[in-house]
Amino acid sequence: MVEKVSVGLLGLGTVGSGVVQIIDHHQDKLMHQVGCQVKITKILVNDVTKKRDVYLNGTRLTTDANDVIDDPEIDVVIEVMGGIEEARNYILQALRNKKHVVTANKDLMALHGSELLAVAVENGCDLFYEASVAGGIPILRSLVEGLSSDRITKMMGIVNGTTNYILTKMSQDGREYDEVLAEAQALGYAESDPTSDVEGLDAARKICILGTLGFSMKIDLEDVSVAGISGVSKEDLDYGKQLGYEMKLIGLASRMDDKVEISVQPTFIPLSHPLAAVNNEFNAVYVYGEAVGETMFYGPGAGKLPTATAVVSDLVEVVKNMRLGVNGNSAILPQFEKKLKSDREILAKYFLRIHAKDQPGTFAALTSLFSEMNVSLEKILQLPLKGNDATNAAAEIIMVTHAASKKDYEMVLMQLNDLDVVDQVKSSYRVEGEEQR
Amino acid sequence: MVEKVSVGLLGLGTVGSGVVQIIDHHQDKLMHQVGCQVKITKILVNDVTKKRDVYLNGTRLTTDANDVIDDPEIDVVIEVMGGIEEARNYILQALRNKKHVVTANKDLMALHGSELLAVAVENGCDLFYEASVAGGIPILRSLVEGLSSDRITKMMGIVNGTTNYILTKMSQDGREYDEVLAEAQALGYAESDPTSDVEGLDAARKICILGTLGFSMKIDLEDVSVAGISGVSKEDLDYGKQLGYEMKLIGLASRMDDKVEISVQPTFIPLSHPLAAVNNEFNAVYVYGEAVGETMFYGPGAGKLPTATAVVSDLVEVVKNMRLGVNGNSAILPQFEKKLKSDREILAKYFLRIHAKDQPGTFAALTSLFSEMNVSLEKILQLPLKGNDATNAAAEIIMVTHAASKKDYEMVLMQLNDLDVVDQVKSSYRVEGEEQR
Repeated sequence: MVEKVSVGLLGLGTVGSGVVQIIDHHQDKLMHQVGCQVKITKILVNDVTKKRDVYLNGTRLTTDANDVIDDPEIDVVIEVMGGIEEARNYILQALRNKKHVVTANKDLMALHGSELLAVAVENGCDLFYEASVAGGIPILRSLVEGLSSDRITKMMGIVNGTTNYILTKMSQDGREYDEVLAEAQALGYAESDPTSDVEGLDAARKICILGTLGFSMKIDLEDVSVAGISGVSKEDLDYGKQLGYEMKLIGLASRMDDKVEISVQPTFIPLSHPLAAVNNEFNAVYVYGEAVGETMFYGPGAGKLPTATAVVSDLVEVVKNMRLGVNGNSAILPQFEKKLKSDREILAKYFLRIHAKDQPGTFAALTSLFSEMNVSLEKILQLPLKGNDATNAAAEIIMVTHAASKKDYEMVLMQLNDLDVVDQVKSSYRVEGEEQR
Repeated sequence: MVEKVSVGLLGLGTVGSGVVQIIDHHQDKLMHQVGCQVKITKILVNDVTKKRDVYLNGTRLTTDANDVIDDPEIDVVIEVMGGIEEARNYILQALRNKKHVVTANKDLMALHGSELLAVAVENGCDLFYEASVAGGIPILRSLVEGLSSDRITKMMGIVNGTTNYILTKMSQDGREYDEVLAEAQALGYAESDPTSDVEGLDAARKICILGTLGFSMKIDLEDVSVAGISGVSKEDLDYGKQLGYEMKLIGLASRMDDKVEISVQPTFIPLSHPLAAVNNEFNAVYVYGEAVGETMFYGPGAGKLPTATAVVSDLVEVVKNMRLGVNGNSAILPQFEKKLKSDREILAKYFLRIHAKDQPGTFAALTSLFSEMNVSLEKILQLPLKGNDATNAAAEIIMVTHAASKKDYEMVLMQLNDLDVVDQVKSSYRVEGEEQR
């Protein structure tokens, strides 16, 4: 049985330093868990002379990646350098050298996860990536453990901290999107180019990883239908709240029979649902399993120590598997053929806000259009329009539908604009989380 | 390395049948995870002739416990029979026979956990009990994994489904305790003698187990300060909501430096806190770790398949450890001497509701008592008294304190009754969850 494990680290930034720190501080506990010694022996960096704020205990630094990934003494490679092509090549080479790999790289796993996992299995290696989705939450491990005795039917994740922070501030303080975004940028909570976060691309990568694992189906990033939060207004949140909803950017993966839907979109969630209380930069993933029912995992989505903790927990699994002789078994390759739901098969409830004329016949025109398209209404709220918007239109009408097919609903949306009584369709959002709980 | 594992089951009730079913249905997946075959070979039952609704696949049934626990072929004993003395003796005997043990028995673990774990370690055996706290939530494993690279400072758990169901119905439907309890009993959600649930004893056992594990300190059931929900009124919930709180029965374990507090009590939680949205019979445990920050685990607290899933996940761990040769390491024996906080050292916020005379001087008398005792007030709500209660007293006064020592606060409570202006202290509750998040 393996009695000593050597680890090579690619990258010594925030997460890398956290990993070094945790392994250094918890050497005894780690040994207790896995039954043998675990040591970082080499680290790939850009500059070996740079001063580091972490105790390296004589570990060799190198600027040559091959020094790490071709070293026959190294058993496990941890990739925390980020980026895509270079990281992919290093990981492929490490796997072909029969080294197990732990990565925190969501972009890489979302784009090339299936390829990398296949190469890992071919080489009898583990490839773990817990830190790539919701750093402080052990969600991938929970899915894998759950999967061994259950079948997952749906996942809803708040998996982007920046957008959740923005939506929380908009909702709690009644402020507009632009203002909160600017503040978040000033505070360093949002990037100067926030596109990847606010347009839902970061969340799409994570739900792509979750869907692939949870449904054992190779989901590609292009399969994810994506909408971001940049069009969400304070009014939308206000009216939503009046009808009992909170808005969250939800990564959704759901399955009915053998067909799946994967999407990211601003979504109204009932105020009483646990996801509605996930605030600020926190993340959470809500999972529906046939046997266990509904579970939710909540915690920090990022941060040095939460993310590094996830990387180290993966390393512990790799070492246990090495000693068990079961490496390569845990890399769950997609077992099922991917079948995506058509728009006709996607059933959901929607929240719709329009400005309409306040005159006899408005409601009759609206409701006859909905019923023609087989979309029935659950809630209606009509209010007189106030302020600048009160031009031709005089009524603010908010409707929540019963579950309808996405295709039918989109037909309604298209035709609404042609109705004389409708001045403007202001906004339209998906509603989720109202299953009987 | 171990190539085949035989399991003996003590008990074939709801959970036992679930375990048999899961192992039968997921044989392949299990083997994939642990790298060897796992088979239930004998089951202790009361009646071997009774018809069972689970496929036993030729497994031998016996009414003689020694047939299972003394069988040299059996490697792992799963105890799902319940009760205390008999279960304790069987488990002790199994451990002394060098068999690993998985149990779902919270009463047993709360009372005799430390003794059983010590005997497990003496004999180099594993003793796992994930199913004993919040069946469908992998909370004990998460604590153990978290502990290997973190330090837990506080846990707040909604760990009793019956009381959470009652409080949810009272809060959502504005109904009184007695009425909701009677309905819960009629529906089978509450026992005909509900004492253990509604007086907080069941929750006390669970927080005792969580505290012992999370703080690595032998917490005894007597160390848990316990209050139940039978005195909670609809008015309390209404006024709490006006001030932004939801009421939950919270099992609390918190630590400051090397001293701990363990308690169970009806507690007001801010409406925006994730615990406030844990409704009906769901359980959740909110954990504060120094490295990872705040995490929450949410799911079903009981039920055949959730609980059996937890038992099987423990079995998987045992088998992995057998093949790793690290059994007995995972049984975390309390490492630190128990030091309980005194009432002077327990700092908390409180919600207090009193009936007082609506006359000049009332507020002066109240506030001078509070300030004399070093308890300062954060929120005050005064309303005219309505209905039957309007005898002498005429004002309903609700106050929320800033953090105060429990000792000082209890002095205030005692002396309030002596004030002329106070008619009656109606209720008093702890407030938690308002740390900066």
